[in-house]
Amino acid sequence: MSRFPELLITLPIWVDQVSPPSASYNTLEDRMDLAITLASRNVIELTGGPFGAGIFDPSTGVLVAAGVNMVIPGRAAILHAETVAMALAGQVVGSFDLTGLEMVSSNEPCAMCLGAIPWAGIDRLVCGARHEDATGVGFDEGDKPLDWVALLRRRGIEVVQDVLRAEAVSVLASYAAGGGVIYNGRRGKP
Amino acid sequence: MSRFPELLITLPIWVDQVSPPSASYNTLEDRMDLAITLASRNVIELTGGPFGAGIFDPSTGVLVAAGVNMVIPGRAAILHAETVAMALAGQVVGSFDLTGLEMVSSNEPCAMCLGAIPWAGIDRLVCGARHEDATGVGFDEGDKPLDWVALLRRRGIEVVQDVLRAEAVSVLASYAAGGGVIYNGRRGKP
Repeated sequence: MSRFPELLITLPIWVDQVSPPSASYNTLEDRMDLAITLASRNVIELTGGPFGAGIFDPSTGVLVAAGVNMVIPGRAAILHAETVAMALAGQVVGSFDLTGLEMVSSNEPCAMCLGAIPWAGIDRLVCGARHEDATGVGFDEGDKPLDWVALLRRRGIEVVQDVLRAEAVSVLASYAAGGGVIYNGRRGKP
Repeated sequence: MSRFPELLITLPIWVDQVSPPSASYNTLEDRMDLAITLASRNVIELTGGPFGAGIFDPSTGVLVAAGVNMVIPGRAAILHAETVAMALAGQVVGSFDLTGLEMVSSNEPCAMCLGAIPWAGIDRLVCGARHEDATGVGFDEGDKPLDWVALLRRRGIEVVQDVLRAEAVSVLASYAAGGGVIYNGRRGKP
């Protein structure tokens, strides 16, 4: 190994409890329910921010990989739920290319995760809370193109919004009400 | 550890040879020269695509962490030079927050890396090749806001373009001329 430090991306062990290997996720609501559970449990377990995601095989309902926000404990700004899920799914399928798979996220993607989605080649993005739900409690979502949904669709990526949105929003609201850290390296700068 | 696979982000060992601990990088050109060397050597060593980056402490000229593109060998679309450099720099400083540091990249950022930059809190972004130099040889850079430089500056992040641009472009040109893979999960879809 080189002289530079390494970073091991590894999920908290409690993730196994909420997503046992025997589980199958047959509907979009089943998959979103898991993403929201990952988000809420991540806060309770003090393992990161209120965001969860999963990469699913829509043909079987199998969860390929889960993801939770690990920015603070992982000491890396890139460790959002979606980027973690995509990176770990790549380890399962043996390639960066996740064509044929679907990403289900408790929130619409921030600018970074939005940019990552076409690189991972997923076929469909399913979102719970909206961009404005996250910014509404103080999260900065970055400078996304206003027509980001159309831009993904133009690349052949299906986008489904508002799946269990109210439940997803309640996780954000609880987090903010509980005084959760709205971390951001550029917080406070316009 | 959970039942899901892990991903260890670790730099190729040859990175130590091109950036010994004793080196200091006092000018922007010194730093860019390293980023370009990382890009070109990454292709020669077959450890990834033609992109390199470094996080520097501008007050000392010290390289905090290097980064190279590792998408194909790392089986993860998120492993661009810039995201790797930011993630590993976080391990050095002990926080996702890289305020006070500078990122020097052989290329202007793709949509994902652009989105990541404000989350890592770097103070300055220094670029070699331009967006159109990468797309010119076939790389998809994603759907970036047209005014991305102004948007970073509005967040207090300084942007310096065209440092050793010709040298950076020559790495891209050599890669394309050599038949290097222009990987992209959505390649071929408009």
